[in-house]
Amino acid sequence: MSESGGIIAFLSDFGGGSIYPALVKGVAKRINPGLSIIDLTHDVPPFNVSLGAFFLLSSCRWLPGGTVFLAVVDPGVGGDRRALIVSTERYIFVGPDNGLIYPAAKREGIVSTHVIKRGRYTLESGCDTFHGRDVFAPIAAHLSLGVPPAELGLESEMPFPLHIPEETVDEHQVTGTVLFVDPFGNVVTSVRSSAFTPFSERADSILINGKHAVPARTFSDIPEGRLGIVPGSLERVEVGAFRGSAAMILGVEVGDLIRFVKE
Amino acid sequence: MSESGGIIAFLSDFGGGSIYPALVKGVAKRINPGLSIIDLTHDVPPFNVSLGAFFLLSSCRWLPGGTVFLAVVDPGVGGDRRALIVSTERYIFVGPDNGLIYPAAKREGIVSTHVIKRGRYTLESGCDTFHGRDVFAPIAAHLSLGVPPAELGLESEMPFPLHIPEETVDEHQVTGTVLFVDPFGNVVTSVRSSAFTPFSERADSILINGKHAVPARTFSDIPEGRLGIVPGSLERVEVGAFRGSAAMILGVEVGDLIRFVKE
Amino acid sequence: MSESGGIIAFLSDFGGGSIYPALVKGVAKRINPGLSIIDLTHDVPPFNVSLGAFFLLSSCRWLPGGTVFLAVVDPGVGGDRRALIVSTERYIFVGPDNGLIYPAAKREGIVSTHVIKRGRYTLESGCDTFHGRDVFAPIAAHLSLGVPPAELGLESEMPFPLHIPEETVDEHQVTGTVLFVDPFGNVVTSVRSSAFTPFSERADSILINGKHAVPARTFSDIPEGRLGIVPGSLERVEVGAFRGSAAMILGVEVGDLIRFVKE
Repeated sequence: MSESGGIIAFLSDFGGGSIYPALVKGVAKRINPGLSIIDLTHDVPPFNVSLGAFFLLSSCRWLPGGTVFLAVVDPGVGGDRRALIVSTERYIFVGPDNGLIYPAAKREGIVSTHVIKRGRYTLESGCDTFHGRDVFAPIAAHLSLGVPPAELGLESEMPFPLHIPEETVDEHQVTGTVLFVDPFGNVVTSVRSSAFTPFSERADSILINGKHAVPARTFSDIPEGRLGIVPGSLERVEVGAFRGSAAMILGVEVGDLIRFVKE
Repeated sequence: MSESGGIIAFLSDFGGGSIYPALVKGVAKRINPGLSIIDLTHDVPPFNVSLGAFFLLSSCRWLPGGTVFLAVVDPGVGGDRRALIVSTERYIFVGPDNGLIYPAAKREGIVSTHVIKRGRYTLESGCDTFHGRDVFAPIAAHLSLGVPPAELGLESEMPFPLHIPEETVDEHQVTGTVLFVDPFGNVVTSVRSSAFTPFSERADSILINGKHAVPARTFSDIPEGRLGIVPGSLERVEVGAFRGSAAMILGVEVGDLIRFVKE
Repeated sequence: MSESGGIIAFLSDFGGGSIYPALVKGVAKRINPGLSIIDLTHDVPPFNVSLGAFFLLSSCRWLPGGTVFLAVVDPGVGGDRRALIVSTERYIFVGPDNGLIYPAAKREGIVSTHVIKRGRYTLESGCDTFHGRDVFAPIAAHLSLGVPPAELGLESEMPFPLHIPEETVDEHQVTGTVLFVDPFGNVVTSVRSSAFTPFSERADSILINGKHAVPARTFSDIPEGRLGIVPGSLERVEVGAFRGSAAMILGVEVGDLIRFVKE
């Protein structure tokens, strides 16, 4: 537990404008009044476990060691999916066992996995539709106080795996998908910068889905009227347009294929 | 006052993307630097006192005892509506006297009502359009520090009443209204789960505005392609569709009548 | 540094629903675990330095003395624009040197300006697109801990100036522009209330872009069906309509000219 009372980093698809995140926070603060809560985002598109998992994977390393990640994108709430505590060296992840927390926990190095026990440490509200509030929040709050996972759950096998899309590379092209479009219209692709850099070092110009683009170090290096390919802040290649929307210029949406071909 | 310096839970219609909530928080933190602030929501539809009141009613019991609720949906700001402090056993509510805080305070059990005095504890900014910042924020901050309501206002009669819609029930049907549609497309109705459960226990299938639906314990129990009726997390009946928008399927909007009829 | 561990007030164009603000906060909390962070807004329209500067100018005086303002609207990120620490008597401002922090810092009284040194106190992430996280967050966090600007940067000349639009006044009319439209549909103009009040005191009715309007003290004083001109909470004149959208009635958008003419 950190000196300042512990940190929960909270990601969900509840909607940033809704009251649901506040109910989760209220329950957690009842248990740990000194708790600090950082909202990762509550605007994961509803039920999009895969994009939630990518956001968690991309975010977690920037948070302080000891942070408890509370992640709820949970289309199976109230069903038979397990509710997990996954401990890694630096962090603890709490959420449904549907793949959401797997990629981040895997990268951090999974130390143990526990299935949450309902009862002493969870709430009974008479409804079975909001485990974020009734199950995950009290468990995360107790973890932030230093209660050990073995007290809150039963040791279990590894979490359900989910793999975040990456890229396929050959000599002439790299292929990935659109993970999301950021608020500036930049296209965040599944292609890892570490895989793209060696490929692009041997190229002056690159075609993206048939349109000309230039490799660039940062968005402000993209020449006016052109597309640029930039090593992004989430370790993936991003396509941008100087002060414009690359997503609109390319006409791509989340999940679309994106192909980089050397000219 | 809690050990961690007090909690304000803050609800408004200022818009979650606007700078206005931050000005309120800044004023409160100037008065109580150790204060913790939980945003309930700032996306109450503009001037929708009734929906704001429902959100407050549904949220408050999940927050820690001692929380000061600062609620501002205030179409009459600067006019002659009163500005109130309403104390209950567990909580204190601060806001305009237009019904907004009544249902939550009533349910918690009103202990005293005070009309806020302008002057020593409030700000004079030279404008009369933002009492959230100039009146309610400093009062809530002082309350979070443990200053008694009698120091900040004059004891007064009960707050202006407002009644949140519930349901009408007879042997064959239950009728309510649409309170809001959540980010998943679920229709949150005015019908209390406690009133609906005895009605639906004697039914296999139910017509909602003429469409077939099944009672279900949770959203993931709703069969594919069907509508389900679920006891929701806010103690009201919700209508959902498995991974789809019940609101679109039913074609309903906020305020519309919703009728559950036994088949 | 305040007792409670320091305050950072954070404004950006990252999008309130995006994960980017959380990465900035995570980095800052790693450095200063006791830190309190207030979000001013993350919904400045992308790259709109001028509107971001106005929001900062309008917000800062409401925050506690000692607050570090972290402001990132940064179309030139990774380019040759400087990264600054600007100290004033009450506050410290951190951000790109593109005008964003100038109006607020100017009004507060600039005491010193430092150009941030990359290295010991900043992060190297291998990308050059997110200085909010890699440069400004760690600098702001160290400032919130009381590290002096001279330790983090090199003393330098004044920041790049940017002037927020105001008004032109003659005997018969006042002209300004639309700064933004608030969530209620009120039109926040560039016209300072302090300049408008003497003009309007000699008028019963005023034409705004050809439509009749009345001066009013607050929005609830505007007669039904009419437009009203109100001294707003950000020290600028606002045009409202009783429970309606003045922006729609006037047909104006951000940046449009707005002309007040005595009838």
